[in-house]
Amino acid sequence: MKLLTHATAIAAIAALGATVSIASAQSPAATQTVVRAGSQPAIDGPAANFTGRVRVEPVFPATADAPFSAGYVTFEPGARSAWHTHPAGQRLIVTAGNGRTGVWGGPVVEIKAGDAVWCPPGLKHWHGAAPGSAMTHLALTGQKDGANVHWLEHVTDEQYGR
Amino acid sequence: MKLLTHATAIAAIAALGATVSIASAQSPAATQTVVRAGSQPAIDGPAANFTGRVRVEPVFPATADAPFSAGYVTFEPGARSAWHTHPAGQRLIVTAGNGRTGVWGGPVVEIKAGDAVWCPPGLKHWHGAAPGSAMTHLALTGQKDGANVHWLEHVTDEQYGR
Repeated sequence: MKLLTHATAIAAIAALGATVSIASAQSPAATQTVVRAGSQPAIDGPAANFTGRVRVEPVFPATADAPFSAGYVTFEPGARSAWHTHPAGQRLIVTAGNGRTGVWGGPVVEIKAGDAVWCPPGLKHWHGAAPGSAMTHLALTGQKDGANVHWLEHVTDEQYGR
Repeated sequence: MKLLTHATAIAAIAALGATVSIASAQSPAATQTVVRAGSQPAIDGPAANFTGRVRVEPVFPATADAPFSAGYVTFEPGARSAWHTHPAGQRLIVTAGNGRTGVWGGPVVEIKAGDAVWCPPGLKHWHGAAPGSAMTHLALTGQKDGANVHWLEHVTDEQYGR
């Protein structure tokens, strides 16, 4: 794993958008940092890596002290990621709607708000909305050697189970 | 940090409640695990560590591959944690309502749905609801030497800024 200095980590959080550092009576590094709602622009999921309309809202990047990023991802009905792997694994927490996820050679599994998914390092998988419902999940993604995802081919309609 | 074997980590997730393992064509360990919404009982925040009514809903535990736990914490209006530190830091994502957080010797800062907070390792701090609003946050808490929190004294009304 690529290690960042603490100062770099703080700078990376600060670079995310409007932040508030809460000074304390302890050492200068020992502050809380607040990233404000709406301070970071949403990103459209690129067509190379997704099928259908997908919106990504970054929450925070991976840092040395907490080596996993967080972001909300919203899939419109029928939208899904391409097949991909995570070199350091990924946790999903579904926050709204109904969705699906599949692993290479395995079944399609329905997921819904409140469900949590663990995808171990290196597993080829996909996730997205159900055909008739949007789905939002928080994605908590580990980082290894500077990478957190390796993208593969698109998920076909047959693989999606439409 | 206490390292768990992969098998132990999977067992720890499985022990959380109703789970679904999605078999794949890869090695037996390479499965996705789904922890279903509502499958884990909520816990009342104990009076030793909180002021007012607080409900904790576990999402997943720390594991070897992803060494941070996740849980939703809901504070009724005016409720807050005691002062405490996290040996490996903590990230909060506010998911509903309005709240407050403070660090030792620093100001009280308002937080609201969509805000994200980073608390570095060892920083003495507290978090909770606003006086007139409940607040829910997802807490993502690192683990070091088997511990993720060290509890200290309660937050007085004056420190809370009532």
